[in-house]
Amino acid sequence: MKSLNVISNHFTVSAPIVQENLLEKYRSMSNLDVKFLNKLYYGNHELEMKQLEKVLIENPLFKTETQEELSRQDEREVGIKKMRVIFDEGRRIVEPSTLYNDPQRFLIFGLPTLIYNQAIATKFSVSFILYFKTIDNLGTEIHQKYKDRLIEQQSDVGCFALTELGHGSNVRSIMTTAHYDPKKEEFIINTPTDLAMKFWIGGASQTATIAVVFAQLYIDGKSEGPHVFLVPLRDKRTFEVLPGLIIGDCGKKNGQDGIDNGFIIFNNYRIPRENLLNRFSNVTKEGKFETTIPNIDKRFAVQLGSLSQGRLMIIGSSPRLLGYATKIALRFAAMRRQFGKPDEKEEVPLIEYPLHQYRLFPLVASVIACKITGTKVYEMWQDCLPELFDPESTKVPEIHAITSSLKAIHSWIAMRGIQECREACGGLGYSYYSKLGILRNNFDINQTWEGDNNVLLQQTAKYLIDIMQALVKGKKVQTQTCHWIKKTPVEGQQNETTTEEEFLRGENLYAVFQHRTNLLLQKSGMKLAMAMAQDKTANPIDLWNNTQVFHLNALSKSFGELFIVQQFHTFIKKLENDELKTNKDTKEALSKLFQLFCLSKIEADLGTFRDGDYLTSEHGDFVRNSILRLCGELKRHIIPLVETFYPIDELMDSMIAPGSGDLYGSIVNKVYGAPKVFQRIQNWEDIYLKK
Amino acid sequence: MKSLNVISNHFTVSAPIVQENLLEKYRSMSNLDVKFLNKLYYGNHELEMKQLEKVLIENPLFKTETQEELSRQDEREVGIKKMRVIFDEGRRIVEPSTLYNDPQRFLIFGLPTLIYNQAIATKFSVSFILYFKTIDNLGTEIHQKYKDRLIEQQSDVGCFALTELGHGSNVRSIMTTAHYDPKKEEFIINTPTDLAMKFWIGGASQTATIAVVFAQLYIDGKSEGPHVFLVPLRDKRTFEVLPGLIIGDCGKKNGQDGIDNGFIIFNNYRIPRENLLNRFSNVTKEGKFETTIPNIDKRFAVQLGSLSQGRLMIIGSSPRLLGYATKIALRFAAMRRQFGKPDEKEEVPLIEYPLHQYRLFPLVASVIACKITGTKVYEMWQDCLPELFDPESTKVPEIHAITSSLKAIHSWIAMRGIQECREACGGLGYSYYSKLGILRNNFDINQTWEGDNNVLLQQTAKYLIDIMQALVKGKKVQTQTCHWIKKTPVEGQQNETTTEEEFLRGENLYAVFQHRTNLLLQKSGMKLAMAMAQDKTANPIDLWNNTQVFHLNALSKSFGELFIVQQFHTFIKKLENDELKTNKDTKEALSKLFQLFCLSKIEADLGTFRDGDYLTSEHGDFVRNSILRLCGELKRHIIPLVETFYPIDELMDSMIAPGSGDLYGSIVNKVYGAPKVFQRIQNWEDIYLKK
Ligand SMILES: Cc1cc2nc3c(=O)[nH]c(=O)nc-3n(C[C@H](O)[C@H](O)[C@H](O)COP(=O)(O)OP(=O)(O)OC[C@H]3O[C@@H](n4cnc5c(N)ncnc54)[C@H](O)[C@@H]3O)c2cc1C
Ligand SMILES: Cc1cc2nc3c(=O)[nH]c(=O)nc-3n(C[C@H](O)[C@H](O)[C@H](O)COP(=O)(O)OP(=O)(O)OC[C@H]3O[C@@H](n4cnc5c(N)ncnc54)[C@H](O)[C@@H]3O)c2cc1C
Repeated sequence: MKSLNVISNHFTVSAPIVQENLLEKYRSMSNLDVKFLNKLYYGNHELEMKQLEKVLIENPLFKTETQEELSRQDEREVGIKKMRVIFDEGRRIVEPSTLYNDPQRFLIFGLPTLIYNQAIATKFSVSFILYFKTIDNLGTEIHQKYKDRLIEQQSDVGCFALTELGHGSNVRSIMTTAHYDPKKEEFIINTPTDLAMKFWIGGASQTATIAVVFAQLYIDGKSEGPHVFLVPLRDKRTFEVLPGLIIGDCGKKNGQDGIDNGFIIFNNYRIPRENLLNRFSNVTKEGKFETTIPNIDKRFAVQLGSLSQGRLMIIGSSPRLLGYATKIALRFAAMRRQFGKPDEKEEVPLIEYPLHQYRLFPLVASVIACKITGTKVYEMWQDCLPELFDPESTKVPEIHAITSSLKAIHSWIAMRGIQECREACGGLGYSYYSKLGILRNNFDINQTWEGDNNVLLQQTAKYLIDIMQALVKGKKVQTQTCHWIKKTPVEGQQNETTTEEEFLRGENLYAVFQHRTNLLLQKSGMKLAMAMAQDKTANPIDLWNNTQVFHLNALSKSFGELFIVQQFHTFIKKLENDELKTNKDTKEALSKLFQLFCLSKIEADLGTFRDGDYLTSEHGDFVRNSILRLCGELKRHIIPLVETFYPIDELMDSMIAPGSGDLYGSIVNKVYGAPKVFQRIQNWEDIYLKK
Repeated sequence: MKSLNVISNHFTVSAPIVQENLLEKYRSMSNLDVKFLNKLYYGNHELEMKQLEKVLIENPLFKTETQEELSRQDEREVGIKKMRVIFDEGRRIVEPSTLYNDPQRFLIFGLPTLIYNQAIATKFSVSFILYFKTIDNLGTEIHQKYKDRLIEQQSDVGCFALTELGHGSNVRSIMTTAHYDPKKEEFIINTPTDLAMKFWIGGASQTATIAVVFAQLYIDGKSEGPHVFLVPLRDKRTFEVLPGLIIGDCGKKNGQDGIDNGFIIFNNYRIPRENLLNRFSNVTKEGKFETTIPNIDKRFAVQLGSLSQGRLMIIGSSPRLLGYATKIALRFAAMRRQFGKPDEKEEVPLIEYPLHQYRLFPLVASVIACKITGTKVYEMWQDCLPELFDPESTKVPEIHAITSSLKAIHSWIAMRGIQECREACGGLGYSYYSKLGILRNNFDINQTWEGDNNVLLQQTAKYLIDIMQALVKGKKVQTQTCHWIKKTPVEGQQNETTTEEEFLRGENLYAVFQHRTNLLLQKSGMKLAMAMAQDKTANPIDLWNNTQVFHLNALSKSFGELFIVQQFHTFIKKLENDELKTNKDTKEALSKLFQLFCLSKIEADLGTFRDGDYLTSEHGDFVRNSILRLCGELKRHIIPLVETFYPIDELMDSMIAPGSGDLYGSIVNKVYGAPKVFQRIQNWEDIYLKK
């Protein structure tokens, strides 16, 4: 242990008892197919990602987060410098536009950055996905130069200004105005009230020179709904805010302090007519409004397109960040002993406790489940791209529905999972140097931005209700995600499996999730219909809101979980019939993780699964018994498995999870190396002697 | 709105639409009996608490947490200064020893500090409860002076050194040694290995001059188990660490950075014989060991007595901190509008959404439930005090069992509740200035310290199994908390209520929780017995560990919830039969909150309640329908109710919950007033122009 050297500078402490390397021991318990698992994790992008990874490991600018204890201002300065380095090095490896047009590739290439520091990853998402994609999606040729300015000249840094102080979820009602002035051929942007100030805009307060701004377009006093404008914010030579704007900082946050979220107030701020992103709507010189999407709401939906891609990033990054946390917590669980048995010399490693397994192993199952699902959704997205701006596309609403649900589920699973990891590491998990608190605090906001989870679920519900209504009316419905919908009532049906083995079969587990989703869909539809029948004058929005709890909200979650189960199930079937080839241990581990994922989700909502006695008490026992058995059986696979999770040891930034297996050496070294470790309290004379 | 003044210094923004004061509107919807609710909240200690509160409001040293953005080192310095002020002013109001001998009084008197800054409250808990009480509990007359030195001369600051790097939950196995040297009549304290270093010791790294240190006592090489010693740490004139010690800082944490947790390494560190706290064990000059508690484990249990009182503080403070969070989230919910209805000018306040009610109202019910329960437990504790060190007492193991369970449940409820509050406030809940992140990050550790929740539950389970075994053997059992235990099997019993009304009766709800607890107790007992019968050679500790998940762990939680339900139920009965007198609205609100509390707990674990078909699908519908109805009915009471939660407006430190009702004015003022709000990024020339 290096630590002893440090201590011996003070005086000698007798050498510690040489301990068995437990991490090595657990690592060698299963022979997992690392290549196969890497392919699952990184798709085809591992090699290019590795090149970027090298930069973060080798460039001395990149100290680990837990080493730096920066003030908010310093964090920003250092953050932007790092972003520049990553950008410069990254574009040598992959051409930026190929990246942001392929979410899976963007995700994997961005992994080192994400794992290293979530705020820097956010900076990339804001400028690549929110800013660039908005220009790509909504702009025309003349607007492309604004992207090039960043990519080629690195002079522009863009931000995305949608949210206002008064409107976040309901951005349809933003209050910033853009009036057209035909005399000067300019738009005049205004912030009519405090509530209308742009708020939370990532990058706006200190770093961005330009923004895509959403504002209500007015022509001759008539509103044409929200439109998007390119709006310069700062003088690029002095970096001062341009006249006519007030820009300030939203202040300290619960996390992500590396990104400078700002507010923007416009006071008769003028921009040229060409700055309207005019792919779908245009204003002529004379002030005539033209549009290819006459429906104002559909037009708005199209304008929000880049948010969907943001959601895809959350779907993909959530399991990776949770994977990081589980890697920390499980390595710790393998190395940390606590409590012994009489007659045994050594205490028991935490990982041996069934309770500890039960707390952590289902999280690992979730990581795999969400990863597989994410990949599928990325495929669906790529497939849907050609239709993205076709108002008649059936794929677009569907991908919107499924990503809305999955964004919510994945981010909830990760948030709650990271917190469980922190708790499972006891006091040491509360150390900043465990990284678990950092992961949680930064991650938290994924539940809110790019659409608040509970609000997104309502959009999914709307899709499902629409599909069901269409089906009931006998319409033909094009769908990849809704084959499970039954037109006949499912209430009163019973699951017919009678043994644990039958219950655990993939087909059955899949059927169980289908049942719950059908039940909730039918119940929700019924409740809505009955309420409408009872009170014909009632406001449909009230009925909708009254049907959220236990109905539409639960339905959307159930739908998302069903989709995950379906993807995982399909994957396992491919393993079983050798469509996907791997070794025995890997097959066993993944199959058991599939079961564990399903069972722990059933257990968490057993009340609903038992509704209408679809499952019986005995099924409940199957579920619980199997969870325990599976955890026990998975023990030998779990460390080798989390070892394949990102990041590699050079980027692991947790003192409680050293790859060497030397837990206590790692802790002591980290703590001894922290700033001001040996110190009286500042100004101690003032505090103590004056008394 | 004041904000407009600030803005108008730059230029004019047209005045905001004058909005209805929604907070006032919701406040006036119910006529709650504030005096009655205050009594419930503060017991008899409101007036003295108010005096201390005044100090925090009036003394300019006390800037709010969200105003100060301090470095770790500054936070500590400022923290200890504030602690001194509170201490000085506080002792003028109440004599310190009356305080720390009465947990309820300590809690209420400490409320302003707790709400103001959790780390400062921790400092008080460490020195008053952990340090002082250890001396009181285990010391004899000669040791009292160490307390007086703090109280009278304010020269000593004490800390509590139990945990080591290698041992936190299993402190019975700590490795620090204390060998007696009869020649010099001294103990020699040593840290034999890295794992034995004292770790996490609150106050040790920078502020404490003395510690109570737990070490294995050796006489002539023979171990007598852990004992407690008074150990000087620093020279009080220079504040330097004394020779023979290494003391350092554990570093940055996920929260509570105001408290300086440190590690301590002892190298043949000598202390006088008298420094052994020798109430129960003594070492004579000659080196003879004497004890009044021959059993080494019982002796150790007694030595941990002050931790129990620490647990009481968590039981009492959890609902208060959650109360603070719900006050923030619900005020916000009343003032924040989002989404409208066609034909209505104004958007709908969040509090009107059933989904939002469902997310937050059960948390308010928990606050009340846990508060009532806490008060009861404090009474039991006071009642038990005279027997605290009587190894034959039946009350001591009982209070230990119930506080262990409640410490876990209360802290979990609060932690998860605070997080839900943050999420319910959307992006603004992610602002540091909402205070919700601060509350969560500091609170988190309550789940771990004073005994990790999952470990504590095992101690409760042990008590319950012992009681059941005694009962089965026909022994007479003295208990205040276990009257519900049935000797006859409950599996297969059914709840006989057939209407929602019947189901909701207090007696029935109470019976439902009794049933679950009996079921889990019987199942756990059975599982243990069967496992033992199956394999007579098995290690009982393995059997125990294998019976945690879904059994003993669930049992202990169920027992704690049952106790809460019982206390709340008793309280409601007193309201109903006018033993407690209050007005109609208050009665209605509290009765409905009682039902909501029970129902939301049933809903969360419906799977278990449905086991053996004790509850039917129809009961499940009762539960869900009633939750929704109750939320709707509670809407008019909820704001007036949270308004009675601590703190008062002068100490409210959340920009999203101003008492004035002017949500946006408050936000704008706060954000404008934060440090460096209008600023280019530091060293922007380096970052941007060099390109
Ligand atoms: C760190 C950070 C960075 C951000 N970056 C950007 C950025 O770069 N650009 C940008 O434009 N925006 C940005 N945002 C804003 C973000 O997109 C919004 O915070 C998010 O859309 C949620 O809106 P809100 O905060 O106004 O929440 P609200 O809409 O006020 O919602 C608050 C709560 O009410 C609930 N709720 C709302 N409506 C309903 C309903 N109808 N029924 C039931 N419940 C409801 C929600 O579930 C939520 O819990 C950022 C925010 C943060 C915190
Ligand atoms: C900020 C802070 C301040 C503190 N202040 C003090 C102080 O002033 N003085 C002091 O003496 N100590 C202090 N502590 C230490 C604290 O009391 C311990 O952290 C706590 O007792 C838990 O022990 P541990 O951290 O070693 O967790 P561990 O014992 O390592 O537990 C880790 C995890 O393993 C699980 N686990 C452990 N055993 C079992 C089992 N048998 N079965 C199933 N699961 C198990 C636990 O549930 C937990 O999730 C402090 C800690 C912190 C973080």
